[in-house]
Order: sequence, then C-alpha cells, then structure tokens
Amino acid sequence: MWQLLQFPLCPFSRKVRLVMAEKGVPAELVRENPWERRDEFVDLNPAGETPVLVETERNIVLIGSQPIAEYFEETVEKTPMIHGDAAQRAEIRRLTEWFDEKLFREVVEPLMVERMRKRLVSKESPDTRVLRDAMRVGNNHLDYLDYLLDHRRWLAGAALSLADFTAAAHLSVIDYLGAVDWRGHKQTKDWYSVMKSRPAFRPLLGERMEVIVPPQHYDKVDF
Amino acid sequence: MWQLLQFPLCPFSRKVRLVMAEKGVPAELVRENPWERRDEFVDLNPAGETPVLVETERNIVLIGSQPIAEYFEETVEKTPMIHGDAAQRAEIRRLTEWFDEKLFREVVEPLMVERMRKRLVSKESPDTRVLRDAMRVGNNHLDYLDYLLDHRRWLAGAALSLADFTAAAHLSVIDYLGAVDWRGHKQTKDWYSVMKSRPAFRPLLGERMEVIVPPQHYDKVDF
Repeated sequence: MWQLLQFPLCPFSRKVRLVMAEKGVPAELVRENPWERRDEFVDLNPAGETPVLVETERNIVLIGSQPIAEYFEETVEKTPMIHGDAAQRAEIRRLTEWFDEKLFREVVEPLMVERMRKRLVSKESPDTRVLRDAMRVGNNHLDYLDYLLDHRRWLAGAALSLADFTAAAHLSVIDYLGAVDWRGHKQTKDWYSVMKSRPAFRPLLGERMEVIVPPQHYDKVDF
Repeated sequence: MWQLLQFPLCPFSRKVRLVMAEKGVPAELVRENPWERRDEFVDLNPAGETPVLVETERNIVLIGSQPIAEYFEETVEKTPMIHGDAAQRAEIRRLTEWFDEKLFREVVEPLMVERMRKRLVSKESPDTRVLRDAMRVGNNHLDYLDYLLDHRRWLAGAALSLADFTAAAHLSVIDYLGAVDWRGHKQTKDWYSVMKSRPAFRPLLGERMEVIVPPQHYDKVDF
C-alpha cells in the first residue's frame, strides 16, 4: 500500500491525489507540514517538499508531482493522462509545467504564503500589496484558460489530460483561500465545474484545514 | 529539419542541444533574445522563454526543455536518457527537475541576471550581495552533486541519464560566467570533465557570446 506524505493545501499533493484516484490506486494519506522540515522527511526528500510517495514493502520512494504522475502513467493503464502522439504529449507536458511553475510561482505560492502560512505559522498579517498583485496575475491566468477553452474541448486538446488535473489542483487551492474571482470567466468556470463533479475530486473538496475556512461556494459543483 | 529558437547562455536551450546532439537529431540554431519579447516569438510560446523547437513541414511546435526531452526520448531510440524501471525513471525525472527548478532559481538565474543581463541589456552594475549569495548556494549544490557521485556512478544511478545532461547544461552556463569555484569538489569536477569530453558538448563549449568572455578553463576538459 502506498503512503502519500502530503499537505492538504499543497497543490502538488492535490495533483497526485487526483492522478491516483483517477487511476484507481489506493493510498494512505499522511499529513506533513513541509515548513517544519522534519528530519525523517528531509531524509526522504532533500528538497523538503510535499508530495512524497512511499511503498515500504518494495522499498520505493517517489518524489515530486510530475515524476509521480509519469510513474503512474507508465504503470497503470486506466485513465490515460499523457496521451496522443508525441507532439500532443509535449503539449500536455508544456501546459502541466505552465501550471506547476508559472501559475504556482506567480499566483498560488504567494497566496499560500499570505493567506495560509502567515496565519498558521508565523502569525503575521498578510501583505495586501502582494495579495492584490497575485490576484491580478491570477486573473490573467484565468484569461489564458478561457482562451484555451475557447479553442479546445479540454485545456491541452480534444481529450481530458494531466494538464486539466494539474490546473484544477492549483485552482482548488486558491479557491479554498477565497482568492479566485470567477466573474467574467465563464469558460473556465464551466470547465472547473465539470472537474469538481468527478468522483476523484470529491474527497479533496470535502476536506477542511484547521483555522482556515473556505468560502461557501468552494465545494459546490454549481457555484 | 528542426529549427531551435534558443539563446547561447540559456541552460534550457543547452539541455535541448545536448539531448538532440546525443540522439543524432540535427537542428538549425536560431538565436533568440528572450528579453526582447519579439511578437512572433511570444506568439509561438506565450511564456516568452527559450527553447522552442519548430518543424514547419509537419507544423510541429515543441516548447520547453522537459517536454522536448521527453519527445525525443519517445521518438528516438539512440542514447536512452530516461531509462530503467518506472521507479528509476522517477529518480531521473526528480533530479532533472531539481536542476531545472532548484539549481536554476537559486543559482543560475540570479547569476545570469547579475553577470549577463545587467551587462548586456540594462547596463547596470551587478548586485554583489546577490552574486555572493548565489555563489554560496551554488557551492551547496556542488556538495549535493559530490554526495550523489560518492554513492552512484552517474547522478541518477548506474547509467548516464537526462539528469547528467541537465546538470551539465546548468553548470556550463555558470562556469561560462566565471561563477563556479571547483576547489573542494573533486567528484563533481571529474564527472563534469567526462561530460565536457563528449562530442555533443564540444560545440557548446566552442561558442562565444558577445561582450562576455568566459574564464580560461571554461572549454578545457582538464581544468
């Protein structure tokens, strides 16, 4: 049985949980607060970041959301996520990386710091300028999603792919933090509503962090 | 024929050049200065970053070093770079990501800004504090490489892999910028010397940027 060392509002942990649930691979969830830099955790992953996936029986340790996603794509046939010809697969990987790097650095990470970490860990007030900038850039990212969905059925093309699960994982975190203004983004909102209604997504939406309460609409498929 | 839109001191462009050369895929190099944000270039890649690989005959556009590396791994058998069982492949991808994200953000990117961009583009003086910090963290990264090479023949295991080419691409950029202190890193130095002696590496080492001159040892296999 896989043990997933993860943090509830870590978008990369959420991405792996979605991939594993979609592929029907069970995992025991183990809560890890990355900022504590627990010795045993840093020994497993020198980057000190979630997610880490462990299977003690076969002595396997998998680190990082993309290596883990590729691992299950290679080993589990169910719900292919990096599909199509090689060029199509490159487009899925390009967008996945776009969300994991660009959307994360510019929007998700600063919002997590200001709205979660400062509240939970350092007990500081959020920096309103950083918040405002992140939400403004977040809005540009939603525009880009709208643009993609104007031209394609799913984010990376005609079929549901890892790019959709990755974008949904990141958006679900900032939506929990009340930092998504859905007005004016009908395409993305409709797409996200479909993502939210997938059985794999339900456990994520049902979960609550201590202290931080999501907005009313957070777990609603119609929002 | 592939056209590679690339920048000589971009580590991601170098990674793709190494992968293509090792796999025996010819490419025409097209110089792109990403900071100019040329309209046609941003139309190809909305992130505005090198490398972008184009084949007009088949209307293929591939974006980003990792999607491109995976593309050639899937389509060209020669010199496998993401090999072994699924867990081993995850380890190769973990380290590749470590260099592309952590080493890049913490070391290579700040050094490129201070030692190259400020000189070439904005004509400012480098910030010595940023330089010093980046070089200090770079030294920690070399320690980590030493540690890996103490336990393994190559960075990700018993065989040469994409992790080695990626690390070498990043190190070659900061070495060009005179920002690597090789003293005390015998394992990594020996490994890099072997990487440098590969035929795929030679064209990179022979190339010179305008204005910025690399240190004497830069293109020497014995250094």
